[in-house]
Parts: sequence; structure tokens; C-alpha cells
Amino acid sequence: MKNNSLILLIIIIAISCGREKQQHQNFNSDKMMIRISEIEIELEYLDEYLLILKEESKASVELEPGVISIYPMYQKEKPNEIRILEIYADRKAYESHLETPHFKQYKTTTLEMVKSLKLVDMEAIDGQTMPMIFNKIKRN
Amino acid sequence: MKNNSLILLIIIIAISCGREKQQHQNFNSDKMMIRISEIEIELEYLDEYLLILKEESKASVELEPGVISIYPMYQKEKPNEIRILEIYADRKAYESHLETPHFKQYKTTTLEMVKSLKLVDMEAIDGQTMPMIFNKIKRN
Repeated sequence: MKNNSLILLIIIIAISCGREKQQHQNFNSDKMMIRISEIEIELEYLDEYLLILKEESKASVELEPGVISIYPMYQKEKPNEIRILEIYADRKAYESHLETPHFKQYKTTTLEMVKSLKLVDMEAIDGQTMPMIFNKIKRN
Repeated sequence: MKNNSLILLIIIIAISCGREKQQHQNFNSDKMMIRISEIEIELEYLDEYLLILKEESKASVELEPGVISIYPMYQKEKPNEIRILEIYADRKAYESHLETPHFKQYKTTTLEMVKSLKLVDMEAIDGQTMPMIFNKIKRN
């Protein structure tokens, strides 16, 4: 019985260890699609837009394994100047993102709030720094 | 003896679990300092600049616990247009970064390579998305 308890304990620890590791994924940095979206919002819609964008980003990162980052920010000096760092595992992950209900919902509800939109394709200077950076932060 | 082996196994698993968790750190998103640096580089220095920036970013993230992200990118259409997403745990971490040998080395060696430099202070729209995003990637 004592042995059984110990074995059970080992199994519980091993499973919880496994879960911790499963939350991470390996991505091939050569295939990643990186973009900074530069979005100017009509001032009168700003609060409403921020709420919708926040929901959309959260849903994308939580529900889509291929969405590595949709990290939205605004400029402190010009809060209606939005910048979003978007990183997709590959082109396919990006295309599938465009077809999700949360993206379509975001796109249609914010269409008239957007004054200008520029999608700037980026390349990472060091594919290896990202894993190091991202591993520093723990899910709360 | 059998029991001892089991206990030893538990200890080993628990320690390796602990190590996995220790690699992460908790940051207070309210105190974070977020910035996008927009840097235009003189074309003739571009290759040299990229090497220096890559070294500096790597050293900062590896050596400084308060540097959450120094993630350098360039625009695909204009490779001499550099963008760096910089995230520091707090103002103190940023100030201490400015005093490091690797930052000082970067600053002095690249001074004449930089055509223009704009430091744009940002605010995260959702402090909670970052931990989710960053936790997706595993250190290789």
C-alpha cells in the first residue's frame, strides 16, 4: 500500500510535469510570418475599438495553435495609433486565422473605426532570440 | 531499498519539474516599460549593423533578468528600416540596461551607422496576452 501511494505520487508529479511542457511548442523560425500592423483609429471610436481588439487578440492566441503572437499596443503620445506585433507559425496558420469567427467578427465590427491600416511584413534579425525572450514569462 | 529507489525517483522528477518552472519569471505588467525603436540605417553599414545588433540583443536577453524582450526585426521591403520591440520589467531594469558593457559597446560602434532613430513609448492593450503568447514558445 505504501508502495502504491508512492507510485501514485510519481504518476501525479510526472503528469503535471508533462502538462507544463505541453504548453510550449517548438516553431521553425524560418517559416514564421512576422508583421507589424500599423492602425490609426478614429478618435471617437477608440475605447470601443480597444475592447474589440483585446477580445480578438486573446481569442486568437488562446484558440489558434499557429498564432504565436498577436500583441497589441498603442503609442503613449498618440493613443489612437495602434501597433500589433503579429507572429504566425507559417503562412498556413495566418490564412487559417483569417477564416476564424473571432477574426471575421473583429474585421466587420471595426471596419468604420479604422482611419488607416498598413501591414508591414518583417523579418526577425535573430530567430533564436525569440524563444529566449518568450520563455522568460510565465502564464499567470 | 525498493522504497528508497522510488523516493529517489520522486525527488529527481520534482527537481527537474522545479527547474522547468524556474526558467520562467513573473513580471508585473503595470510596471513594464514597452517601446518600439524605429531605426533607419545607412545602407552601406547594414550588414555590419545587423551583426552588432544581433549580438547586443542576445546578450541583453541572456544576461539581464529585467530585459523581457529586445526583439529586433527589419522591414522586408526596406531592410535598412529596423524595428525593435523592447520590453523591460520596469524603469530600473531599463536604466540598468543602459549601463551594461554590451549596450555601451553597441551604442558607440553603431553611432555613425544610424541615419535616424525614433524611440516610441508604447502601452500594452492587454497585459495578460503577453504571458500567454510568450509561453507558447520553448527555448531550443
